[in-house]
Order: sequence, then structure tokens, then C-alpha cells
Amino acid sequence: MVSQMKSFLFLFIFLVLSKTVISARSKSSKSQPKPCKNFVLYYHDIMFGVDDVQNATSAAVTNPPGLGNFKFGKLVIFDDPITTDKNYQSEPVARAQGFYFYDMKNDYNAWFAYTLVFNSTQHKGTLNIMGADLMMEKSRDLSVVGGTGDFFMSRGIVTFETDTFEGAKYFRVKMDIKLYECY
Amino acid sequence: MVSQMKSFLFLFIFLVLSKTVISARSKSSKSQPKPCKNFVLYYHDIMFGVDDVQNATSAAVTNPPGLGNFKFGKLVIFDDPITTDKNYQSEPVARAQGFYFYDMKNDYNAWFAYTLVFNSTQHKGTLNIMGADLMMEKSRDLSVVGGTGDFFMSRGIVTFETDTFEGAKYFRVKMDIKLYECY
Amino acid sequence: MVSQMKSFLFLFIFLVLSKTVISARSKSSKSQPKPCKNFVLYYHDIMFGVDDVQNATSAAVTNPPGLGNFKFGKLVIFDDPITTDKNYQSEPVARAQGFYFYDMKNDYNAWFAYTLVFNSTQHKGTLNIMGADLMMEKSRDLSVVGGTGDFFMSRGIVTFETDTFEGAKYFRVKMDIKLYECY
Repeated sequence: MVSQMKSFLFLFIFLVLSKTVISARSKSSKSQPKPCKNFVLYYHDIMFGVDDVQNATSAAVTNPPGLGNFKFGKLVIFDDPITTDKNYQSEPVARAQGFYFYDMKNDYNAWFAYTLVFNSTQHKGTLNIMGADLMMEKSRDLSVVGGTGDFFMSRGIVTFETDTFEGAKYFRVKMDIKLYECY
Repeated sequence: MVSQMKSFLFLFIFLVLSKTVISARSKSSKSQPKPCKNFVLYYHDIMFGVDDVQNATSAAVTNPPGLGNFKFGKLVIFDDPITTDKNYQSEPVARAQGFYFYDMKNDYNAWFAYTLVFNSTQHKGTLNIMGADLMMEKSRDLSVVGGTGDFFMSRGIVTFETDTFEGAKYFRVKMDIKLYECY
Repeated sequence: MVSQMKSFLFLFIFLVLSKTVISARSKSSKSQPKPCKNFVLYYHDIMFGVDDVQNATSAAVTNPPGLGNFKFGKLVIFDDPITTDKNYQSEPVARAQGFYFYDMKNDYNAWFAYTLVFNSTQHKGTLNIMGADLMMEKSRDLSVVGGTGDFFMSRGIVTFETDTFEGAKYFRVKMDIKLYECY
């Protein structure tokens, strides 16, 4: 009886210790953990021209200074609708408020910082996001650096994929949002 | 004796396991943890006009491009004094260095990214903050996404409340800073 | 035998509990933990003039509005090469894509937000960084607020030291990057 219990005790100690080792290691291993929240949203950007205040959701506030031919230095401020499908006229589930600018002299490339503002019956709160939009890549990752409300203190990754664009007037980006830190 | 010990052992295993379960759950529950640091500060913004270099602490660097009538696209860079009371002439305990811009076409709404720079006997270090300033809400939350010095690696929430404003010339925001990750 | 085992059990319980206490404490102590990654890089910024598209890596997109004599409000967008040594013509190991602006009326002072984009055989991924560049200090700390790819979910500190500058045309900053959260 005592010897059985002894083996049991050692087994238990072994399990506790190995669990500790495993969890410590997973923190620095290359394998990505499973997200605690994951959802896909579509971002629609309709650039302000001159007489389309009604439809426009973004506007350039600087002129490219002439460093190359790919709009280097054009900075755009936006308040863009976010939908769950590809139709920009669907009821938005959030707004994306922030800015992007073009930043490469020999190709199109951009940089974003913005807040997803959720204010629906399903979600209230914000996600704060920043990172490079490497437009020549099929998909590219930005960082979710914080959150508030339902997304209190969240962190994670947003993967951008350009879904479509119509010249300089309209583009749609698929945003695959994966949160890895949730409270 | 052995049987007593056995029950004790099982009780102990049960406690260890239940503790693990509870701590795992608290990470994804809705209840917000208690902040590890919490303080209230006032932010004062005095917009640069033409001949008031002496008093001004911020300046617009872009012109609104005409998307609506609420300054959409006006970007302001600031180096604003931070005080512990409502008097903007009190000795500042920090500076807020960064920018905001207006980003809504049918109401006033803004977006901020800035650093609180502390350099006093009490605090040395910085807090880096970004998020949407949903001006139509009485209070709104931004993210503390990092910190340095005394605030090494901090994360948390800043709650904004507009305390007063005098036209486009001066406004004061109450910032309730709650840090939930401290080192 | 039973009594030996009993002491052993109490020792074990004691060890488990003390470990918990120690790890909880280290989270809120002032002593900085050891970085999980640490590397030094050099950032080179060559400002666009008029006819030097070939060499330029950054460009101003706003004009200082006249608040003081230290370029307050000048906003610069960059796609700057990052090298491991001081020679800006060395093969870059990354690009720094983002922006900075000057924000003080009585001295030079700046604010940065940018992404380090790694795309080499050694590293693929990004680090997202923001913070005040307190130029009057010999060294100053900014926050690494997120990462992707090889730097998945990283956080840490970047310490800036101005290495050299040639008027408004070129400057080089030594960036000592210390990551304290790695996955």
C-alpha cells in the first residue's frame, strides 16, 4: 500500500514538473499557440475626391513630395466601415478609424495605425492595431497591440489580404483577426 | 495513518488542479483584474495660432481637405503639459508628446498616439498610448501599449474625459491611467 | 517509511508554494528581467531633397507651421535601410518603415512609430515600435509593442543612441533592441 502510494506520488511529481517544463518551453518555441478569439472582417476604403462627400470614407491630407512614382508620402485619414461580408453597403459591425501612408519609392507599400471601434449588440470595445502593409505580399501580418471593452487588454495578429481594388477610388481588404492574449 | 495521508494527498492534488483551472479561466473571463498602478492626470492643449508661440503647446500641420464640416483630416502635433490638477499653469509632472487628428465627417471625433514623458523626482520613464478618442462618448478608453523606465513594459488602459474646452483654442482632458501589467 | 514520506510530501508542498510566491513577486519587482532576444542594429536616414531620388530614403510631407525654430511639426515618412554595422551601404538586414516628426518648440525632439521589416534567410517577420525620441538625452527608450513571423507577439524595448548626423541630410541611429516577451 505504502509502496503503491509512493509510486503514485512520484508519478504525480513527475507530471507536475514535466508540465512546468513544457509550459515554459512553449513560451519560447516557434509553434504558435491557438488564438483565444478569431474572426474575419472586411475593410472598405472609399477615397474622397472633390464632390463625393456622401460616399467617401477617407481623405488624403498630404501631397506626395515626389520621391518615386508610387505615392510615397501620401497620408490618408479614414473612418471606414467594417463588414462581415464583401458588400460595402452591408450593415457595418465596426468602424476602422486611423490612417495609412505610402512609404516606398519603387513599388506600392503602406503603413497602418488604426482602431477597430465595435459598437453593436454583439461587441462593444476597441482593438488597436499597427504595422507595415507589405502590399507586394499576398498576405501580411500587423500587430494588435491593445484592446478595450469586450477586448480588454487583448493582443494578437491581423492578417491583411487585398480582396479587390478599383484604381485609387476604392479598395477592400480582408482582415483575419487572431487574438492570442485575452482576459 | 496511511489512509489519512492518502486522503490528504488526494486533497492536495485536487487543490493544485483546481487552482490551475481557476487561473486558466480568469485569463479569459470578463471580470477585469485590479490595476497594479492607477493615477489621474490632466492634459492641456493650447493650439498655436499665429503670434502666440509663447503659450502654444500644439500646432496643426495639415489642412482639412473638405470631407464634412468637422475638421476631418486636421492633424495636430503636440508637446502638452500634464498636471495633477486642473490648472494648466501648475508645475507639470509629465509632457504628452505625440499627435491627434480628426477623422469623422458628420461629428467631432479624433484619434491619438502619444508618449507620456515623466522626468521628475517621483517618476522617470515613459508610457506609450494609442487609440480612438470617441468624442461623443462621455468617457472613452485608449490602450497603454508599452512603457519604459519606471513603467518598464507596462500595459493598461487610459480613460479620457473631456474636462473643458474653449473653442478651438484650449481643451483639457482628464486621463485616468490604469496599468494592469507591471514588472 | 510513512513518516519519511510524510516529510517528503510536506517538502514538496512547500517547494510548490514557494515557487508560486516567487514567480508572482518577480512580475511586480523593479529588477528588469533578462531579454529573451537582444541585437544591435543601425538605422540610416537620408532625407529627400529635390533631385536625389536615387539615394533618398525618407521625405518630409508637412511644413513646420512656425511654432519655434526647431522644425516643430515637420513630419517625415521613411523606408530606411537597417544594417548591422555603421556603413549605410552595407547589405541591409531589414527595412525600417514608418514616420517621425519633430515636436518641441525650444529644442530638437522627435516622436517615432515604425515597423522593422526583416526578410532575410536569418529572420522573417516584423517588429512594431513606437515612442518618444528625446534627442537631448544620450540614450532613450522606445517600446516594441508587437511582432509577427519570427518575432510573433514579441514585446520589448529599443534604446536609441544618435551615432552621427550630417546637417539635415543624413543621420544614423544605433538601435539596441531587447525583447522581454518572446513566444
